[in-house]
Amino acid sequence: MITVLSGGVGAARLLRVLAAHVPATDLTAVVNVGDDFCLHGLTICPDLDTVTYTLAGRHDEAQGWGLRDESWRVMDELAHLGGPTWFRLGDRDLATHLYRSQRLAEGATKSQVSAEIARAHGVDVRVLPASDDPIATTLTTAQGELGFQEYFVQHHHQVPVTAIAYRGALTAAPGPGVADAIEGADRVVLAPSNPLLSLAPILAVPGVRAALAARRGPSVAVSPLVGGRALKGPADRLLEELGHDAGSRGVAALYGDLVDTWVIDEADAGDAGDLRTQGYEVRVTSTVMGEPGRDARLAAAVLA
Amino acid sequence: MITVLSGGVGAARLLRVLAAHVPATDLTAVVNVGDDFCLHGLTICPDLDTVTYTLAGRHDEAQGWGLRDESWRVMDELAHLGGPTWFRLGDRDLATHLYRSQRLAEGATKSQVSAEIARAHGVDVRVLPASDDPIATTLTTAQGELGFQEYFVQHHHQVPVTAIAYRGALTAAPGPGVADAIEGADRVVLAPSNPLLSLAPILAVPGVRAALAARRGPSVAVSPLVGGRALKGPADRLLEELGHDAGSRGVAALYGDLVDTWVIDEADAGDAGDLRTQGYEVRVTSTVMGEPGRDARLAAAVLA
Repeated sequence: MITVLSGGVGAARLLRVLAAHVPATDLTAVVNVGDDFCLHGLTICPDLDTVTYTLAGRHDEAQGWGLRDESWRVMDELAHLGGPTWFRLGDRDLATHLYRSQRLAEGATKSQVSAEIARAHGVDVRVLPASDDPIATTLTTAQGELGFQEYFVQHHHQVPVTAIAYRGALTAAPGPGVADAIEGADRVVLAPSNPLLSLAPILAVPGVRAALAARRGPSVAVSPLVGGRALKGPADRLLEELGHDAGSRGVAALYGDLVDTWVIDEADAGDAGDLRTQGYEVRVTSTVMGEPGRDARLAAAVLA
Repeated sequence: MITVLSGGVGAARLLRVLAAHVPATDLTAVVNVGDDFCLHGLTICPDLDTVTYTLAGRHDEAQGWGLRDESWRVMDELAHLGGPTWFRLGDRDLATHLYRSQRLAEGATKSQVSAEIARAHGVDVRVLPASDDPIATTLTTAQGELGFQEYFVQHHHQVPVTAIAYRGALTAAPGPGVADAIEGADRVVLAPSNPLLSLAPILAVPGVRAALAARRGPSVAVSPLVGGRALKGPADRLLEELGHDAGSRGVAALYGDLVDTWVIDEADAGDAGDLRTQGYEVRVTSTVMGEPGRDARLAAAVLA
């Protein structure tokens, strides 16, 4: 049993790579909910959806979010009405948000709804929200405090950040099954997701951290950096802006002894010695996913 | 200035007919909100939308609801997810509900949002919700108490009704501008809408009834019956089920002295004498809209 702490795209891709090498039913994704927000009356859970869509093979690979073969009839009409269209919601993608919002209104939990959506998509990986309690990642910037999506999508993560908060995380309980999935896992994997924006809101839940601390067995982190830089998104810049060390050292410091093994990219091979000096086991391979041979080597490094 | 108390399709058509004969800016529609409901996290206002879409010339004439040239991508995907699809929401129509729900979440009133949507559609008729307070028409049936849309759409209004309630109406205030639009109107028109389901929830608001009672000048009702039957919908059956007189007499009794003039269809010409005996002025013409010559005569009968 393998449990993967997951953000969005990077985690979704890693889960897909792992699912090609172990039975999907052996995999559990514990997914960040700090990006979740309400717009148009709808509850939108971008990381949960990215993970589910990717595992279903229905994601838009090129775009990096949403569904393939998408249409934009609703957004086009919404633009005509003068409504907010900065967060692009495709027609089919919208069905997910309608479904979830209706079920939540009926009293279902985010966990129940996530399981229902995964089942409808034929996804056998267990997709668990990190918590059913509301957690909201917010960023303090020169433009004031921004919600995650305002920062990430509306401002294209191009405003300097002086602080990040995970509102609600300290009083949130892990979602049903989350603590067990972590404590009982043969292996916990920290996905190559943004450490400050995607994995930190999961790790900020005390029950998650306790479950990680209580467990035995390997905890493997896949670095989100390639050559010291984020493949996509602001991970490297945020480390710098918030005064962390750059590169692998900075990321490793964030997870500390929650991790015993690091998988880093060949472009960061120079960091291996430093990480080993800190007591980590280090595996160097290509972490850029998408090519079957490389993906197999990455899976082997994570599962070894 | 002409103020039309309005339900859905019948009212929307009459408004369109009138707008061809008087300046749109002289017309105010006070629209039923008792059908409004929440689904998928969205606030849906069917009568307001039908009136606006029809006045914009974007309504689906054949279908009787929704927008022309509609597509169903969201509903198709929602069906795939196993979500509720009994209330069909086209892709473009959904944009209206997203827009409204977002604006309401931002603190706008239903009146403000209705005006914004009308403006975006280029509609110059003032479209006013009867109230910004929640009103919910509910029906007591053999299947228990049903919300309006459950009765009308989910059960195709095919279950016997023993009682109707307009929940919230007694403590609701008329929407901004509604009382003035009624009191100040040169003419108030009661549209050929379902008297028990569409106009009663408007008339049940004490401030609306007071404004009608306080005014001078003609109040003209267009009967929703043609040959004693509803053109569409359960108006005739509901009158019977709830123990009212059948035909024109039953409808007239519901509005009482709020109305001084009745416009009835040629097929009901036999009721004219009875209505005149009750003190009403009666005009007989075709009330079935859609043919320009007939529509002009109907407009003349209403505006005379």
